[in-house]
Amino acid sequence: MQIIQRPLSYARARRPKFVSELKEFVRFPSVSSQTQRSGDIKRCAQWLAQHLQQIGLERVRVIPTRGNPIVYASWQRAAGHPTLIIYGHYDVLPGEPLREWRTPPFTPTVKNNNLHARGAADDKGQLFSHVKALESYLKTGRALPVNVKCIFEGEEEIGSTNLHSFVARNKHALRAHAAVISDTRMLASDRPAISYAQRGGLRAEVEIAGPPHELHSGAFGGAVHNPVLALCDIIAGLHDGQGRVTIPGFYDDVRVWSEKERAFMARSGPSDEEILRDARVDRGWGEAGYSLYERTTIRPDLGVNGIIGGHAGPGVKGIIPTRALAKVSFRLVPDQDPRRVAQLFRDHIDHVTPPTVRAVVRTMSPIHPALVDRKHPAVQAAALAYKKGFRALPVFVRSGGSIPVVNTFQKILGIPAVLMGFGLPDDHIHGPNEKFHLPNFYKAIETSIWYLALASRLRNAARASQQKEWSA
Amino acid sequence: MQIIQRPLSYARARRPKFVSELKEFVRFPSVSSQTQRSGDIKRCAQWLAQHLQQIGLERVRVIPTRGNPIVYASWQRAAGHPTLIIYGHYDVLPGEPLREWRTPPFTPTVKNNNLHARGAADDKGQLFSHVKALESYLKTGRALPVNVKCIFEGEEEIGSTNLHSFVARNKHALRAHAAVISDTRMLASDRPAISYAQRGGLRAEVEIAGPPHELHSGAFGGAVHNPVLALCDIIAGLHDGQGRVTIPGFYDDVRVWSEKERAFMARSGPSDEEILRDARVDRGWGEAGYSLYERTTIRPDLGVNGIIGGHAGPGVKGIIPTRALAKVSFRLVPDQDPRRVAQLFRDHIDHVTPPTVRAVVRTMSPIHPALVDRKHPAVQAAALAYKKGFRALPVFVRSGGSIPVVNTFQKILGIPAVLMGFGLPDDHIHGPNEKFHLPNFYKAIETSIWYLALASRLRNAARASQQKEWSA
Repeated sequence: MQIIQRPLSYARARRPKFVSELKEFVRFPSVSSQTQRSGDIKRCAQWLAQHLQQIGLERVRVIPTRGNPIVYASWQRAAGHPTLIIYGHYDVLPGEPLREWRTPPFTPTVKNNNLHARGAADDKGQLFSHVKALESYLKTGRALPVNVKCIFEGEEEIGSTNLHSFVARNKHALRAHAAVISDTRMLASDRPAISYAQRGGLRAEVEIAGPPHELHSGAFGGAVHNPVLALCDIIAGLHDGQGRVTIPGFYDDVRVWSEKERAFMARSGPSDEEILRDARVDRGWGEAGYSLYERTTIRPDLGVNGIIGGHAGPGVKGIIPTRALAKVSFRLVPDQDPRRVAQLFRDHIDHVTPPTVRAVVRTMSPIHPALVDRKHPAVQAAALAYKKGFRALPVFVRSGGSIPVVNTFQKILGIPAVLMGFGLPDDHIHGPNEKFHLPNFYKAIETSIWYLALASRLRNAARASQQKEWSA
Repeated sequence: MQIIQRPLSYARARRPKFVSELKEFVRFPSVSSQTQRSGDIKRCAQWLAQHLQQIGLERVRVIPTRGNPIVYASWQRAAGHPTLIIYGHYDVLPGEPLREWRTPPFTPTVKNNNLHARGAADDKGQLFSHVKALESYLKTGRALPVNVKCIFEGEEEIGSTNLHSFVARNKHALRAHAAVISDTRMLASDRPAISYAQRGGLRAEVEIAGPPHELHSGAFGGAVHNPVLALCDIIAGLHDGQGRVTIPGFYDDVRVWSEKERAFMARSGPSDEEILRDARVDRGWGEAGYSLYERTTIRPDLGVNGIIGGHAGPGVKGIIPTRALAKVSFRLVPDQDPRRVAQLFRDHIDHVTPPTVRAVVRTMSPIHPALVDRKHPAVQAAALAYKKGFRALPVFVRSGGSIPVVNTFQKILGIPAVLMGFGLPDDHIHGPNEKFHLPNFYKAIETSIWYLALASRLRNAARASQQKEWSA
C-alpha cells in the first residue's frame, strides 16, 4: 500500500485548488426542475466533461437523453482488476426561496470552513470528491487500482427519468462489480455512515376545481363550495389521529421488520433527540408506535411540498377561488410499489371528493424503495476506507430519502450500490443556505482514494452475492 | 313634474358621451388593496373631483385621509328641500388573475352593449349614474330639486378604513335626510332590487409556522409536522359535516328570523336555481336547513380567499415547508359583532393548534352587519324612481356582501341608507371580465333623475323614523 501515499500527498497539497474548482462547478445553476435552466444544465454538463478529460479519464462523453444529458467517462486499463461504477448527479434543486439565503445560492461562498451554495453537498461536492480522488491517482501514477465507469446524471432531483433506460440500453457496456454512490450523509463529522436502505417515492398533484369564475364571497359565500375548503378537507383526511395514512390499502405491502433489525436500528441509528436537533424543531410528529428514525426509514410518509389557491398575496380579495392545488409527496418503503400506491391514491381521492367540486389527480416520478446487503464485500471495503479517511468506522444507517439509481443498478446490472455519504446533517440540502463542510470534502477525497485501492482486492468476491435478495 | 323632462332629454341625448366619460373613469387602475397603486388612486380621485367641478357641483374637494382621499362635492341651494347624501367608491379590486380576462381589466372595451373593465359595475359605473343625473339637472336648469352632498371614497374594497372617522368628525357638516348608495345589484335587467340588509364581515389570516428551515422531506418526512398538513387540518376543522362553523360561540348572536320574514324572503328573493345559475355551478353547498338565499344573507359564512405554502410552482421540490398561510373571510349577520367573532376565532385557533407547530392569527377589517327599514319613505321613493326608470317596481332583497358605510350612516348620522342597485348578477364583480350593462347605465341615470325629484317631497317625513330600530 506504499503506492497510495503519492495520490494522498497529491490531494493534500492541492486542497485550495480543489475548492476553487468545486466553486466553479457549483456556480452553474443546473436546476433540473425548471425548464428555463436547461441552458445552464447543458453548460454544467459540458464543463464537467471537460474537467474529466483534463484529469486523464477516457472515453469522455456528454450523452444526450430525452431530458438532461448524462456525463460519462471511464478508465479501463486495470486489466484483471474489478470494475467500479461511480455515480453522481450534477443537477440541483431550485434556489428558491431566495430571500432566505444569507449568500446567493449560485454565488459560492466560503465561510467558517464551509462552502455555501446550492448543490455544494447535494450532490456536486460529493461527486467531486471521487473525481478528485481519480485525479490524484492519474496525475501521480498514471494508473488507477481498478477500472472505473463514471455516470454523472442531470435528472436525479426530478426522479432520474432517463437514467433507467440509459442503463437498461447499455447493460453490457456498464458491466461492473459494484457501484459507489455518494449522495447521502454521515451522522456527524466524526461519525461516517453507510446507507443500506433508501425509501422510494411518488409525487402527486391534487387540483380541486370549484366555480368556473372567481365569485364574490359576499354574494355566494355559504352557498357555493369553496375549493380551498374542499382541498383542505381532502388533505386533512389523509391522516388519522394516530398519524397514519388513511388511504385504504396503503400499508398492505409495508414490510414488518424483525425485533432484531429494529434493535440494530435503535443501536446504530440517530436518536429522536438527534433527529429533532438536526431539524431544529422541538417536537416530533408522526405515526404512533415508532421512533423518529423508524418513521423516516421503515415507515412510509405522505407530506405536502406546497399548496396554493385563490388570492394569497398582499391585499385582500373577497372571493371564492376557482381552484386550489396541493403538491403531495409520498416516501415509500419495502415492499410498497409506487405504481400501486398511485392507483390507491387516485381511487381514494376519487372516493372522498364531494360532488360540489371536481378533483384532478396527477401522479409522477415513481421510485421503488431499495435495500443493500450491508455484509457485501464491496460495502465492507467502503467501511475500511472510511476508517482510513475519517479515522472512524462507519455506522450502517437507513436513509429516508430516495436515490432512484440504487434500484436501477441493483435490478438491471445486478450489482450492489455502495452508499458512502459525505454530507452532514446540518448541510441544509434541499433548503436555503446549503453548504458542504470543507474538512469533509478533504476527508472524502482521501476516503475515495482508499476505497479505489481497497476495491482492487474485490475481484470476483463482489459478484458472488450480487443477486442475493437481502432481507432482515 | 314637467320640469323633469329637460334633464331626462339631456341625458338621453348624451349617452355616447356619458359612456366615453365612464371609460375614462374606469381606465384608472385605482386598486386600493395594492400599495403600488397609490399614485393611480390619487390621479383617479383628482380626475373625479375635476369632473364634479365641471358639471356644476360646488365645494369640490379631494380630502386626504390616513389612507386614500375622499372626493367630496355638494350643492346646497335648494333651500327648504331635503338633503341627500350620495355615496359611492372609486377604488376597485385588483385585476388579477390577468390571464383570465378576455380584455385587459383597465382597458375599457364595449362589446354587446356591455362595458368591460374592472370597476365598470363595482362601483364606478353605478356611482357615475348619479353624477350624470346631477349633471342633467345642473346643465339644463342650473338647479337640483334637493340639496346633495356627494361622498366618494377610495377604500371601500379594503374595509372603508378611514370613512368612519371622516363621517364621525364631520357629523354636523354631513347632516342629511337619507343617503343613497348604489353598490348592489338587481335580480335581472327587468327586475330592479333594493337591498334592505347587508352582511357584516371580518378578515383573518392564519399562518402556521413549522421548522425554521425547509427540511428535506426524505430525511424528515414522517417525523416533523408539515405546516401545510397542520393548516389543512385546522381549516378543515372549521366546518362540521352539516356545513356549520365549529368555532364555539359563533352562532350565539345570530338572529333567528320569524317565519313571516322567511316566507317574504322565499317570495321575493332568488331561488336556489337562480343563485346556482348566477354562480355557474351545478350544486349548492353549505349549512343544512336553509335555502341558498338564506345561507348567503341571514346565515354567516366562513370562507378562504386564498392559501399558500411551500413550493407550489412549476417543478418539484421534496421539502417540508417552513410555513403556510390561509386568508380567511367571515360574512356576518345580525346580531354578530365582528370584534367578538375575532376573539372567538383567535381563541379557537389557539385551542386547536397542535404543539408541533405555531399559529399566528391576524384579524382585520371588522364590518358590522346592517339592516334598513324597507318601509322608510326615502326607501319607498326609491321604489317609485325604479318604476319610472326601469318600468318595474323593485323587489326588496337582502345582500350577502358588506358595504361598511351603511352602518356608518345609520349609526353616526342617524339616517337610512337607500341601497339602489344597478348591477346585474352576471356582472362578474370581484372576478375577471367585470362588466356594466350599458342599458342599465342609461336607466340608472334616469332612475336617479327621478329619485332626486321624488326625494324633494320627503322633507321631514324622512327624519321621523330615522332612529327606529328595524326588526323582523
